[in-house]
Amino acid sequence: MIGLGLIGGSVALALGRAGWSVTGIDVDPEAERRARERDVIESIGLDPEADLVVVATPVAAVAEEVRRALDETSAVVTDVGSVKAPIADAVRDARFVPGHPMAGSEQDGLHGADPDLFSGAVWVLTPSDDTSDRALGLVSRFVADLDAEPVTLHADVHDAVVAVVSHVPHLTSVTLMGLAAERAVEHSVLLRLAAGGFRDMTRISAGRPSIWPDICADNRSAIIDVLDELLGRLTEMRELVADGDRGRLLARLETAREARVNLPVGVRDVTDLVEMRVPIPDRPGVLAHVTRLAADLAVNIHDIELAHSTEGSAGVMIVVVSREPGERFAAALDEQGYRPAVRELS
Amino acid sequence: MIGLGLIGGSVALALGRAGWSVTGIDVDPEAERRARERDVIESIGLDPEADLVVVATPVAAVAEEVRRALDETSAVVTDVGSVKAPIADAVRDARFVPGHPMAGSEQDGLHGADPDLFSGAVWVLTPSDDTSDRALGLVSRFVADLDAEPVTLHADVHDAVVAVVSHVPHLTSVTLMGLAAERAVEHSVLLRLAAGGFRDMTRISAGRPSIWPDICADNRSAIIDVLDELLGRLTEMRELVADGDRGRLLARLETAREARVNLPVGVRDVTDLVEMRVPIPDRPGVLAHVTRLAADLAVNIHDIELAHSTEGSAGVMIVVVSREPGERFAAALDEQGYRPAVRELS
Repeated sequence: MIGLGLIGGSVALALGRAGWSVTGIDVDPEAERRARERDVIESIGLDPEADLVVVATPVAAVAEEVRRALDETSAVVTDVGSVKAPIADAVRDARFVPGHPMAGSEQDGLHGADPDLFSGAVWVLTPSDDTSDRALGLVSRFVADLDAEPVTLHADVHDAVVAVVSHVPHLTSVTLMGLAAERAVEHSVLLRLAAGGFRDMTRISAGRPSIWPDICADNRSAIIDVLDELLGRLTEMRELVADGDRGRLLARLETAREARVNLPVGVRDVTDLVEMRVPIPDRPGVLAHVTRLAADLAVNIHDIELAHSTEGSAGVMIVVVSREPGERFAAALDEQGYRPAVRELS
Repeated sequence: MIGLGLIGGSVALALGRAGWSVTGIDVDPEAERRARERDVIESIGLDPEADLVVVATPVAAVAEEVRRALDETSAVVTDVGSVKAPIADAVRDARFVPGHPMAGSEQDGLHGADPDLFSGAVWVLTPSDDTSDRALGLVSRFVADLDAEPVTLHADVHDAVVAVVSHVPHLTSVTLMGLAAERAVEHSVLLRLAAGGFRDMTRISAGRPSIWPDICADNRSAIIDVLDELLGRLTEMRELVADGDRGRLLARLETAREARVNLPVGVRDVTDLVEMRVPIPDRPGVLAHVTRLAADLAVNIHDIELAHSTEGSAGVMIVVVSREPGERFAAALDEQGYRPAVRELS
């Protein structure tokens, strides 16, 4: 491992569990020491005889560390950077397989490391023409050992796709939240009227800001391309509203609805989830009581949020649970005097 | 009740539970028959002696039905239309109190009706200068009987605010989903890489399309105003990315994060609150364990949210607690092997 932060530490823990022998280094000697102390790695160092080197540094340092690993070892080398074309262009080698796990966490650093972080996640690999079949095969087995699913894409396609499904949605969420926050200065009631849809659309804007300047720099052209398309489509939407073009407006709404309903599900089958809204008093112990009920029924709470609709003395707990145990949970809540309201999530 | 769809049916059920005697009509005789059969209403008809008539028809029919209710009964009349200024302008009467419950569901029709739909929700009332105090008082009591919170606003303010927190986010969600669906034709893997953030942002685009042409027509000027502001801000965001302006990009991300994290807090004084981020595995019992710890320490959890940055099997629990008990809570979590990160909220 080169880099022992959240992703590097999680990879090391998962590999150790799968029976690999893992050594590692980090630019921060303190991180190396902690990783060794907590048995995240067996020893500190870059083993020249290693089969595989995984580079898990911030995106800006990846190309240099990959080159170093290729020079100093005979290993196959892969990385976990969230933008791929700049890295794939910078380093072309039979032993290098660029990669990107579609999993992460807002938690930063080794203390958030978790061997289950990649369970069931898609892990994109973007081999170049120079990448050998042997190297791709080894990295694919490594990904499978982390319980993730390897998907091979051209680096440019990866970057265009993540601009659409991740980078531009993130910037849009941030922009909507910023707009609403500024309008709220004038209309203080505004954010109190924000219901489920607004909360959904702005949730990711609560994520860690510091990773985004690098991502925006590295995937600049794909992000600008998608932002331009979004601007064009929103401008058309504005014209449809201004012109009162009901037919074309409805057609856009129908198309989007169709696509969203048919959105392929990853690990978690969203069509099998329900949202429950449970009014609760705002005092210590209530959440413990409700979540204990869920635990006793083996109901896994996928999401939980509190919405304070009144002056602070009461709120609504919003939980997302699987449909079937959700019904038992709703019945149990009802028995305890709570009034859960259940709604489809798909 | 005039109109026995999702909202009308839910209001009728909630009123029945609160002890009101409810009669109702619908443009569709089949809906009337079903509502009677399922005891949603006591009888079919518009009672000329009613205390209150609630108009829960599609927005385009509201003004006409309100006038009819004022003509044919001596009741106070309210409606549930999601745009208020056109209705408030069209009908000015001492007995009319325009209203809009900030709750809903993607479910359509009477079969989705739920007496708890409004529990804890804000219910906006937009009385005109003509509205009598008696009428406003009666409608406020009706709202309280539905377990919702009446909030009085000028109709124009309501319409500007819902354009920001509901209408433009909806059109944006539809636009993002449409863009991704079209790109997916070229890159078939695209939608498989869509993780939690994209799913959150496009969830509302699965909602019923048919209500939106009316809403866009009725709230046209406010929607165009907010769409223009969004277009301006997204264009600025595009320039920040194109110019590689890391400082201003980061500032926007920080502003949005701050606003989103504080969103549920509403009117509360945040100066004495801290936010704790606790990485947790995604399995039954973990939330119960953590919230039990809080309850045992008499720590009141003001807000709680799970952040899944992807569809992996782990998440971060974000809780907002008071500063002083929060320190004890953090220490207890640390002792139990959790790794809480604490941050000031003010």
